[in-house]
Amino acid sequence: MDKNMKFSPLFWPVKFKGNTIYILDETLLPKKEKYIKATDYKQVCMNIKQMKTRAVGQVILVLYTFLMVIRKNKGKKVSFSKLERIAKAINSTRPTLSFKYLTDMVLGWHKSGMPLERCILGFLETLKNARINQAKTAAKLVENNDTILTHCNVSGLLPLTFKFAKTKGKRIKFFVTETRPYLQGSRLTAWEFIREGIPVTIITDNMVAQVMQEGKIDKVIVGADNLAKNGDIANKIGTYQIALVAKNFKIPFYVFCPPASSAKTGKDIKIEVRPDKELLQFQGLNLAPRGTCGYYPAFDITPDNLITKHIGLEV
Amino acid sequence: MDKNMKFSPLFWPVKFKGNTIYILDETLLPKKEKYIKATDYKQVCMNIKQMKTRAVGQVILVLYTFLMVIRKNKGKKVSFSKLERIAKAINSTRPTLSFKYLTDMVLGWHKSGMPLERCILGFLETLKNARINQAKTAAKLVENNDTILTHCNVSGLLPLTFKFAKTKGKRIKFFVTETRPYLQGSRLTAWEFIREGIPVTIITDNMVAQVMQEGKIDKVIVGADNLAKNGDIANKIGTYQIALVAKNFKIPFYVFCPPASSAKTGKDIKIEVRPDKELLQFQGLNLAPRGTCGYYPAFDITPDNLITKHIGLEV
Repeated sequence: MDKNMKFSPLFWPVKFKGNTIYILDETLLPKKEKYIKATDYKQVCMNIKQMKTRAVGQVILVLYTFLMVIRKNKGKKVSFSKLERIAKAINSTRPTLSFKYLTDMVLGWHKSGMPLERCILGFLETLKNARINQAKTAAKLVENNDTILTHCNVSGLLPLTFKFAKTKGKRIKFFVTETRPYLQGSRLTAWEFIREGIPVTIITDNMVAQVMQEGKIDKVIVGADNLAKNGDIANKIGTYQIALVAKNFKIPFYVFCPPASSAKTGKDIKIEVRPDKELLQFQGLNLAPRGTCGYYPAFDITPDNLITKHIGLEV
Repeated sequence: MDKNMKFSPLFWPVKFKGNTIYILDETLLPKKEKYIKATDYKQVCMNIKQMKTRAVGQVILVLYTFLMVIRKNKGKKVSFSKLERIAKAINSTRPTLSFKYLTDMVLGWHKSGMPLERCILGFLETLKNARINQAKTAAKLVENNDTILTHCNVSGLLPLTFKFAKTKGKRIKFFVTETRPYLQGSRLTAWEFIREGIPVTIITDNMVAQVMQEGKIDKVIVGADNLAKNGDIANKIGTYQIALVAKNFKIPFYVFCPPASSAKTGKDIKIEVRPDKELLQFQGLNLAPRGTCGYYPAFDITPDNLITKHIGLEV
């Protein structure tokens, strides 16, 4: 790996310095690039619930939270019950990403007497390299002049894919759905691309079939918040219908995946339902008449049979 | 027809009084119910371009424009060349609805020496009754306890469908997609329903597959801006992918249609592409980083084979 490789700020959106965690506030992007400080696990849980960070940011944040607790204990071993309390609080923040997979891993290290700090740092280093390899794999799957449609935000993996493809002489460009209601596509993905000069066009979520019909899209690449053992994935709401539409047009559908969780199939993954005001209002403006109800499932399940290839996290 | 029947303001969103046209400004709904005055055909064309009215509002507006010109001439016959000039200006406002179909009809009446004013008023009365009949037909297609998904806004036909279904003892409720970027679903359709106490739930455009997967939707009913001779329709962007997804779930897909235009198939219907700032900004707020491009096809074509039944305008 090139030591001078530059990453999108979203590739590693959480930092750890001097026992303080710094979380890139994704709710303020692209207007402001601001980091929120967190100095205890309760602050961490609140930031996760408020979606200040998401996707891989949450994974890094969980690991740094345990690292912070261990370091604050200044050499003394942290009790299992304390770690369990933290794990429990983290697990109950949001349901769809498998926090339990991560916290069980840390509790497991502790139980079997392994050096926690080293395990955490080792895991994060492995994660980083594995993610770089995911982008390399994706770069092999794309062809010169491809236009890739993506949805939501895959935390820095697509700018990296662009770079690896470019070193192999392949020029690619992107379409991104705006990804309502949180606009991760317009706010985060378009921002990641624009700041590195990567060509990107934004469409609304309802234009997917039309742009495919017009022959504008060669491949779809998205991320996943949870991978079930049978290959079903949970990802940001809207992914499922993109996969259905892509299948209709015989367009390959690739997914950057985390390691498989304990879910046997997509049916075992709990879909988070968020407050409807998050789609009925935008920055304080009412989008709908007062008194209207909304329904906001934040994720959906794309079945394995709609996925052309899982780009796994080889750890 | 019940003389006391109450209509949604969107059922007949353009009024004609004392040689002035009053256009319901749909861009201000649901906040304000304001009518814009138009006293010549150039103002009319500007209002159409700015999407102050849409769908059937445009049809009514075109007919009232000719009526206004005729009445202003105080009994003298309006020259064919003047009518032609107006027709040309109207035809070039927006491409997807078949304005030419309407203006050719008026020019045809004039050519064959028919009494223009009576023809126009007769056409509008027939249109009104035919639209009421469309709602009656839809009310027959729905079943008690059905939940209907709709997209964009069908100008008062769905509240009417609700009423006709209710008189037959059938209770129905609605889901509506917000319909980005113009939010006709949240702003217009939800408003039409809420003001009459009709149950409605708003979802974002990317939630369609998920709510269908959850079994929440029994039928889809949408409108159409243009019907080709082979049964393909043009309607608000997003309609096509809803039809594709509905087919996957074997959910009936019904379309309120205008009379067939001169287009042989959907391929002959020109899709309007609107300025990208309409999706990159919302009420002056930037949704994406500066310098990003967007792509905004305002309509798409749903092929005949995805449509369970066309609910025609029987004139």
